[in-house]
Amino acid sequence: MPELRKDPITGRWVIISTDRQKRPYDFRFERATMIGREHCPFCPGHESMTPPEITAYRQNGSAPNTPGWQVRVVPNKYPALQVEGGLDRLGDGMYDLMNGVGAHEVIIETPQHDRTLPTMSEPEIVQVLWAYRERMLDLKRDFRLRHILIFKNHGAAAGATLEHTHSQLIALPIVPDFVREEIEGSRRHFALKERCVFCDLVRQDLADGKRVILENADVAVLAPYAPRFAFETWLLPKRHGARFEEAPRHEYESLARALKTILHRLDRALEQPSYNLIVHTSPFSEDVADVYHWHVEILPKLTRVAGFEWGTGFYINPTPPEEAARVLRSVRI
Amino acid sequence: MPELRKDPITGRWVIISTDRQKRPYDFRFERATMIGREHCPFCPGHESMTPPEITAYRQNGSAPNTPGWQVRVVPNKYPALQVEGGLDRLGDGMYDLMNGVGAHEVIIETPQHDRTLPTMSEPEIVQVLWAYRERMLDLKRDFRLRHILIFKNHGAAAGATLEHTHSQLIALPIVPDFVREEIEGSRRHFALKERCVFCDLVRQDLADGKRVILENADVAVLAPYAPRFAFETWLLPKRHGARFEEAPRHEYESLARALKTILHRLDRALEQPSYNLIVHTSPFSEDVADVYHWHVEILPKLTRVAGFEWGTGFYINPTPPEEAARVLRSVRI
Repeated sequence: MPELRKDPITGRWVIISTDRQKRPYDFRFERATMIGREHCPFCPGHESMTPPEITAYRQNGSAPNTPGWQVRVVPNKYPALQVEGGLDRLGDGMYDLMNGVGAHEVIIETPQHDRTLPTMSEPEIVQVLWAYRERMLDLKRDFRLRHILIFKNHGAAAGATLEHTHSQLIALPIVPDFVREEIEGSRRHFALKERCVFCDLVRQDLADGKRVILENADVAVLAPYAPRFAFETWLLPKRHGARFEEAPRHEYESLARALKTILHRLDRALEQPSYNLIVHTSPFSEDVADVYHWHVEILPKLTRVAGFEWGTGFYINPTPPEEAARVLRSVRI
Repeated sequence: MPELRKDPITGRWVIISTDRQKRPYDFRFERATMIGREHCPFCPGHESMTPPEITAYRQNGSAPNTPGWQVRVVPNKYPALQVEGGLDRLGDGMYDLMNGVGAHEVIIETPQHDRTLPTMSEPEIVQVLWAYRERMLDLKRDFRLRHILIFKNHGAAAGATLEHTHSQLIALPIVPDFVREEIEGSRRHFALKERCVFCDLVRQDLADGKRVILENADVAVLAPYAPRFAFETWLLPKRHGARFEEAPRHEYESLARALKTILHRLDRALEQPSYNLIVHTSPFSEDVADVYHWHVEILPKLTRVAGFEWGTGFYINPTPPEEAARVLRSVRI
């Protein structure tokens, strides 16, 4: 059983895997070993290579765990957390821990091995976002869980180990530190202004224009004011809303359109960069309807991994966001 | 002039470089390009390849910027911050920024191109620690500065771009987020217990033994209870002290001895891993004498860079610290 352990100084929770199969000599710096489509567990016809599916979108009425799906959600074969069991919160002297209870799922975004998100059609991308939503709505009924992380690692430099395009979902019985920081910061702003900090920044940036990459009816795509990474990009709904899973359908459609365009432009401007995409949404356990604002962050992995940034979370960014926005506005696709 | 910008949500400060020389096409994923000793700017005889030295330890009375030194401190040739100028704190609508004023220095740890810290003698390592101390004591007289980061990137996977062993120093007019989190957490513990949280954890872990890697007269070397990274290792002085630069000399001697041993054991157990080493010490601007406890963290870079961990600061660690400590206790060197 994996464990969730709390750092006694910062209060940060960490998942400690207790899979003892990795021996020290397994820890030499890992190389990416991409596998081709013959052995790809996410390709149609290979459904038995994954655990049985949780849900799938099928138009032709085909049976579960057989080809014919457009989006397929399966448990992660090597999960960081375990679905069964109680939390069993414990102290160990001054330390705090609980069982690593939670869900770890994979959203296979398309049956086609060689597609990437920006080469998919808008309705196809909407289906992926709809799968995110469906899984969130299902998992939030589990009273043990407090937060759901949805993210996508694209490219070897961003940690992807399978090239067939997919996202991951981790449902947690705790609220991760970085989410808590955003929530607390949003609360501070609300306490001072009685306004959502994200609504304020969307309004200021759209008026000012210099960090705007694109916008459509519902979504603003911005280079944030203080980005940690070169070409970091945020996609924010213009209408206030704390929870991704409660957004109206037209916002997913607008988000899909914006995602397709911005990922295309990043591919063009930066030559198919690796990136992490992270959905930021409100924890289940928090009542932050007025305070928090869901959004999506894209973090291109352009520079070799920052040395001390890795350990400190303190960032030096070589590209001003105004410059990144200017480049991404002017890309022709 | 680089800028320090504050994220309006989390309050995190970021350095935005305004060096416009990097064009988008320069951002393809960087490769490490190691340069040999013929072109090494840190080798004796090549002193003119660095900016003029700030300080150096020389036994033979040789002139500055000539060979004969054991440790040499120079300004970083490509500094993230600029020494001259006022802070000029400004608002930009809802955003906050200031000039990127600060120091960015390189501590060249040895004249010998092929050495690594663990192959240096204890007195040689003490000299390096003494150089850290001397630079801190000098820079803290600058009233514009609030915190000094000292770190070492070892190996290409940890972000090192020059193989000749060296550390870096960044002096900042702000307190980085991760330092503030540690300070706030330490304050919470002190408010509750009237004891230092680090003193408590050193005491509990030394008594319990299962996460102890080694100890000597002054220093405990532990695998922390909730490590973010596999084989993460902390070196903590047993005696309470908030500031690295105020430690008595015998603690540097004990720290040097512990560093030499633990780095040797990491090299042996994990086959010369890349790692980041970070000195955690109290900001100048905070009166946390009772609350905070300086220490050194070593973060081996073993797994390929975590996908979402990179963007979220939420960690999954495949190695329980008890297992890491057991391995590192039993290495024969």
